[in-house]
Amino acid sequence: MNPPEYFNKIYNRECRIIDEKLSGLLAAREPSSLYGPASYILDLSGKRLRPFLVLLAAKAAGAKYKEAYNAALAVEMLHSFTLVHDDIMDNADLRRGELTLHKKYDLSTAILSGDVLLAIAYEYLLKDAKKNAKEVIAEFTRGLIEVCEGQGLDKEFETRKKVSLQEYLLMITKKTAVLVETCCAIGALLAGADKKTVTGLRNFGLNIGIAFQIQDDLLDITGNEKEFGKKIGGDLIEGKKTFLLLTALRNARGQNLASIKRVINERGIPETEVLLYKQIFEDTGAIEEAKQTIKIFSDKALKSLRAFPDSQDKEIFFWLSDLLIKRAY
Amino acid sequence: MNPPEYFNKIYNRECRIIDEKLSGLLAAREPSSLYGPASYILDLSGKRLRPFLVLLAAKAAGAKYKEAYNAALAVEMLHSFTLVHDDIMDNADLRRGELTLHKKYDLSTAILSGDVLLAIAYEYLLKDAKKNAKEVIAEFTRGLIEVCEGQGLDKEFETRKKVSLQEYLLMITKKTAVLVETCCAIGALLAGADKKTVTGLRNFGLNIGIAFQIQDDLLDITGNEKEFGKKIGGDLIEGKKTFLLLTALRNARGQNLASIKRVINERGIPETEVLLYKQIFEDTGAIEEAKQTIKIFSDKALKSLRAFPDSQDKEIFFWLSDLLIKRAY
Repeated sequence: MNPPEYFNKIYNRECRIIDEKLSGLLAAREPSSLYGPASYILDLSGKRLRPFLVLLAAKAAGAKYKEAYNAALAVEMLHSFTLVHDDIMDNADLRRGELTLHKKYDLSTAILSGDVLLAIAYEYLLKDAKKNAKEVIAEFTRGLIEVCEGQGLDKEFETRKKVSLQEYLLMITKKTAVLVETCCAIGALLAGADKKTVTGLRNFGLNIGIAFQIQDDLLDITGNEKEFGKKIGGDLIEGKKTFLLLTALRNARGQNLASIKRVINERGIPETEVLLYKQIFEDTGAIEEAKQTIKIFSDKALKSLRAFPDSQDKEIFFWLSDLLIKRAY
Repeated sequence: MNPPEYFNKIYNRECRIIDEKLSGLLAAREPSSLYGPASYILDLSGKRLRPFLVLLAAKAAGAKYKEAYNAALAVEMLHSFTLVHDDIMDNADLRRGELTLHKKYDLSTAILSGDVLLAIAYEYLLKDAKKNAKEVIAEFTRGLIEVCEGQGLDKEFETRKKVSLQEYLLMITKKTAVLVETCCAIGALLAGADKKTVTGLRNFGLNIGIAFQIQDDLLDITGNEKEFGKKIGGDLIEGKKTFLLLTALRNARGQNLASIKRVINERGIPETEVLLYKQIFEDTGAIEEAKQTIKIFSDKALKSLRAFPDSQDKEIFFWLSDLLIKRAY
């Protein structure tokens, strides 16, 4: 078996284990009027990348997968908590092709299900945290706080006319990348890794998280609709201030500048204009800059693993980065 | 100064300290679009009973107040988180005489402010948790989970036709009493107390919490509107399944039974009928049973401190119990 096939096999195996553990996790708890809905969101099959990263980081830092499963479940529950509450705030109807929790049940149930998922995340994290429990919990809590701040910024940016590229990068760092960073750091901490190892894995997570989010913005306009799983140009239609839009805004002159400003002022465009804006993103260099920026952060992520000895545990991070980012540049 | 005056002075002094700490707690954090609203709820002057109990328990178990302030702030933040989210679920307009957070701002801001308050509660708890951080965090997390379950039961009971008195007691235990228990247990744990001391203080909190909630139900109908600060009979008007209603339902026969069933089936009564129902609560013995039950739990609370040596640290718990419960029987 060549390495990609082998790593893919590991990923699929661990995903299955995580899925199984998640599916039984809340079964015995009462009241079912609360835990039924909470299970609904845990059971929606996601990519389970965050829990997988906890496992990989723990392994790379010298522990075994089985020493980090509870922590892996904890970060997936934290992630699910954010999805449930974010979906309410975004008034979203669908999540992974199924009804969002507040649409399937109701607002109160969704708020409370999110809350209890977060609470049980801490319970599970504590199961794996041994000697350095305080450090592990502090890392998780810092991640949680920044995720909330990131979501706060995201909501704030929706109604603000002016958002700088720097502010945008801060927002996606907090909203998306810090949790990826937290996954890697927690895995390393559970393994009792030294500071240098923790920092290396932490920086991998942070930078790959930023690259991943910018790629997500890019794929909104350059992606293959079928493969990407979302409507092309959705961010533009909703008037979202993405990396592409903010870069185009900074670079554009004349008619292009007026067009970009219109997206912001009118908070979106008709679907028929998506291709026109794709051209503007090309002409203003926004697409090229996005590709370059993704490459800068991906390279940074991989470089932060430089000090690690060559091994399968290291290689799998390279494989995973490729899997996450390869489509963009 | 006689003991009650002296204890009152301590309470007022510590409340002031807690108020001051809460008021500056989020000031330096960004974004202000998130932390401004979160501060709004922390600044609404409450009785600060939960943080005060953390301090008292820590002191009674051998620590100093100053070793438990951050944990005290943490439980008040946890409490505030529940208020903000519960107010959304109850569609409440006012909280402590001011607009609720989701009415003053909006739904998204309220959900997210609650979330971040909970997150920062953990951050503060970690500041005081030293050697036994894992135990302290586990206690706090257990309390949080049960509060969510209690709120889940409360919402479930709203639409259920049949709720037993036992189920009601489970609900108020989880929704209200467990957090009081958690405050006492955390104070004791921070002081490094032995198991017996932790259990004694824990049981004090749990039982006084149950007594307090049943008293709250009782005062809804027997209270002095001005002193109680709420409209008399509010629970009846809203059709809430309280200790009184469920006891009357169990005891009533004939016309009285039909009247009680009407509250449940029609989910409330007109304000004009409150006095009529007060009479039914008297006639069916519900008011007397409530008083007896409050006494049973209060006595249990005080008995759980029996093994403690006589001291001011012990006496202040008796004083506080009197303050919380004296109006009921």
